[in-house]
Amino acid sequence: MYKKSATDLTKLPAEKVKNWINSFDTVLADCDGVLWIYNDAIEGSANVINKFKGLGKKVYFVTNNSTKTRPEFLEKALRLGFNMTQDEIISTAYVAAQYLKNRNFDKKVYVVGSTGITKELDAVGIQHTGVGPDVLQTSLHHFVNHDFKLEDGIGAVIVGFDEHFSFPKMAKAASYLNDPNCLFIGTNTDERFPMPGYVVPGSGSILRSVEVCSERKAVVMGKPNPFVCEELLKDPTIKPERTLMIGDRCNTDILLGVNCGFQTLLVGTGIHKMNDVESWRAGDDEELKKLIPDVYLPKLGDLYSHM
Amino acid sequence: MYKKSATDLTKLPAEKVKNWINSFDTVLADCDGVLWIYNDAIEGSANVINKFKGLGKKVYFVTNNSTKTRPEFLEKALRLGFNMTQDEIISTAYVAAQYLKNRNFDKKVYVVGSTGITKELDAVGIQHTGVGPDVLQTSLHHFVNHDFKLEDGIGAVIVGFDEHFSFPKMAKAASYLNDPNCLFIGTNTDERFPMPGYVVPGSGSILRSVEVCSERKAVVMGKPNPFVCEELLKDPTIKPERTLMIGDRCNTDILLGVNCGFQTLLVGTGIHKMNDVESWRAGDDEELKKLIPDVYLPKLGDLYSHM
Repeated sequence: MYKKSATDLTKLPAEKVKNWINSFDTVLADCDGVLWIYNDAIEGSANVINKFKGLGKKVYFVTNNSTKTRPEFLEKALRLGFNMTQDEIISTAYVAAQYLKNRNFDKKVYVVGSTGITKELDAVGIQHTGVGPDVLQTSLHHFVNHDFKLEDGIGAVIVGFDEHFSFPKMAKAASYLNDPNCLFIGTNTDERFPMPGYVVPGSGSILRSVEVCSERKAVVMGKPNPFVCEELLKDPTIKPERTLMIGDRCNTDILLGVNCGFQTLLVGTGIHKMNDVESWRAGDDEELKKLIPDVYLPKLGDLYSHM
Repeated sequence: MYKKSATDLTKLPAEKVKNWINSFDTVLADCDGVLWIYNDAIEGSANVINKFKGLGKKVYFVTNNSTKTRPEFLEKALRLGFNMTQDEIISTAYVAAQYLKNRNFDKKVYVVGSTGITKELDAVGIQHTGVGPDVLQTSLHHFVNHDFKLEDGIGAVIVGFDEHFSFPKMAKAASYLNDPNCLFIGTNTDERFPMPGYVVPGSGSILRSVEVCSERKAVVMGKPNPFVCEELLKDPTIKPERTLMIGDRCNTDILLGVNCGFQTLLVGTGIHKMNDVESWRAGDDEELKKLIPDVYLPKLGDLYSHM
């Protein structure tokens, strides 16, 4: 309808916005930066999501955040006013656990990540190492000669967001991955989370370092990889052209939509804004032009008055 | 003379080897994997290096290792029997300090690395942060809201080998680099050091993670960047075509030689072996074909009987 035009919906007549709302039956929504920021709901997002459901649309929540389990996401969403069920949540820790379960994986997983990942592995009965700090206690020389203990039976390495990421974890992950039969899974490739005055690194920066020292490429579970909604797309009632992907980060959310043939809506409450889109449109980089959304809203809640 | 033929010198007649030795006046030798492995000299390497000098050749030692200062390298080299002076040592920590000094840098450096870097900065009077462990003591939430202290006056980030590399260091480096005026220096891009049974990550894997979360590319000091021997090549008596680069890692040492128009010798006592070279020759990847050395020796000491 507005393919790659980045049309600002707030500047369209009400009837056109209503027609646009009628052009999709399924909604995939990113969470951080679209529905909430940390522990605060973004104003109006819950109203719009709940109204989509009231209009009979299917709604799914697709997040690259690997630090929570589906039940933990559900608890947060309900608390913030989103009418959601656990089956509607697609998170990268969950998808990683499903990936291994579907392959009848029966070894142990070395986890660079958080309890979001280990609890999802527990839920499907897959063994794993612990999470938390793993720091060099002595010298490098002592570490490699004495403290560097590799566990037996590791058959996969999962790398997600890990605020305790450290040199010993890099060394262990790369050492396990030296076995070409060891599976290598990355939850997502989000580079970073810019904050006012500082930067929080994302899983993507952790994953790249493990890829470099292991000299291998991970299978990435999260957006923009269509793998994240592979199960969903097996449902014959979900038509890509009548599916809307809503996101705040173009190189994950919007690109997932492009990769799957969905309609795309960028909201300006997170990473990318309209001026990013305009700079890609003005530039010559075809890869960046792929990231241009069909439509744009300053915030998702702006849609509510049209529903 | 044997351009990119990877000729095994041990299979040539003695006279041809002598002619080859006469084809260069200057020698650039990598250290780890060529002269020594950790604290042990590689058999025969010191004899050959010292004999090169006896034959009147200029010899320089070019190492990507950022963990030692030039005086520390010298102490080690003398202990292992190499006839060396400090002026002949070109190390990446030293080059990084020179790089800043030559720009009249008068701010402070945030260092992800070791005392190899901070002592070289001290030697040229440049201020810097400390090195060593910097780990998340509490939760991520507490870290970003309370513990995350950025220092004033940081004008450069140097990333080298750091066995205490951690998530807080990534976050701080990326935050300083958010200022486009902050210089970004990487000592080297060596991916890893494979050992029997395990892998030690190299500076390259640390640097890549900082590049990803800062969304910037570092200026790299080390091999294969010709920058590392820029000063050397200002000496008009050093002719690239009569200069030999000796190394054990083709994507750093041999590629430096190729980038500078030097002759190249690969020795099989470190990272790359003759079977690597043969696989590149048999393949279609032009980038890998660039890594093929002119000549090959199982170990540098094999040359001694011809000198």
